[in-house]
Amino acid sequence: MLQLYDFEKSGNCYKARLLLAHLEMPYERIEVNSRTGETRQPPYLAVNPKGQIPALAVEGAIIAESSAILFYLADGTAYLSGARLARAQCVQWMAFEQANILANIGLSRKWITTGQAEANRKALDEKHKLGHEALAIMEAKLADRDFFVGDRYSIADIALFGYTHLAEEGNFSLRDYSRVRSWIERVKSQPGWVPMIGG
Amino acid sequence: MLQLYDFEKSGNCYKARLLLAHLEMPYERIEVNSRTGETRQPPYLAVNPKGQIPALAVEGAIIAESSAILFYLADGTAYLSGARLARAQCVQWMAFEQANILANIGLSRKWITTGQAEANRKALDEKHKLGHEALAIMEAKLADRDFFVGDRYSIADIALFGYTHLAEEGNFSLRDYSRVRSWIERVKSQPGWVPMIGG
Repeated sequence: MLQLYDFEKSGNCYKARLLLAHLEMPYERIEVNSRTGETRQPPYLAVNPKGQIPALAVEGAIIAESSAILFYLADGTAYLSGARLARAQCVQWMAFEQANILANIGLSRKWITTGQAEANRKALDEKHKLGHEALAIMEAKLADRDFFVGDRYSIADIALFGYTHLAEEGNFSLRDYSRVRSWIERVKSQPGWVPMIGG
Repeated sequence: MLQLYDFEKSGNCYKARLLLAHLEMPYERIEVNSRTGETRQPPYLAVNPKGQIPALAVEGAIIAESSAILFYLADGTAYLSGARLARAQCVQWMAFEQANILANIGLSRKWITTGQAEANRKALDEKHKLGHEALAIMEAKLADRDFFVGDRYSIADIALFGYTHLAEEGNFSLRDYSRVRSWIERVKSQPGWVPMIGG
């Protein structure tokens, strides 16, 4: 059975759990708390030397990086197209998400929800500027489409949803992004969707 | 014909050029200078709203993000396995590279080679610490293998090579990473390999 090294409050881990729920795939969940330093201790570093979650144990190997886990799990399913261009576009949006949504909205949320906002005040301002630039790109992309790649829900949407739907926890208002807000509701209406906590 | 929006001194662009050289694929090169602000002007923002290079025009679409361009170009070739696990592992190492090699070694190089080192002194120290952690992970991975995914050269190696082989321009010594140094020479010996400048 698949094993997922997972922490409930991590948006990156939630992406993997959400896709597994859509796919109705059973898996063993191994809790590793990234906020207590557990992911930086030797037992977990033996699993993933980068000390990050999620990680997926499968085929006798470990897959790290949420984008790679999504790609692996979705390969051959309706959540990842078989078309060459669409597959590359999924990789593109997953890379965009890690560099722009996770790095700005995700990290702002982490600092704010774990009491590190004051210590990172100047960096937070910069992350808010860059995070809003990323949200504006998403808003523009949704002008003529319901989902980010092709005309159907895919791992590109799941990756982007992970931290975008938590934007307010990072003090990002989505007020000016009506299409992003509609897309968030569209994601939540997908068959098998589960919330981040208690899903 | 493929069109590549490209800047000679960008390691991310070089990755695309290197793979195109390996594949012996003809393409039109469109020079966009990211150091003069050209990539942030309206003509280029119409190509890629993120204002980043490289971008690939293909199938009537634009593919942004170097990882996605590598994935698209390599799909169906010897540079990207057809095996599900290996494909996901290529996505994993490309994500690792963007978050750890580009973000630390690549950005250090940019600051140092464009006269921004003093203005970013404190951030540079942190990037050196994190960049060396990433190099140590690469060094450990190469303990029992010649390449990063499976037993052959792939887009994982091309992605990692892009900025790792420029480490010294970012004031990173590779002295303590003998396997990484050997792997760099191994990459340079691949059929069709071209250098970054003048390739």
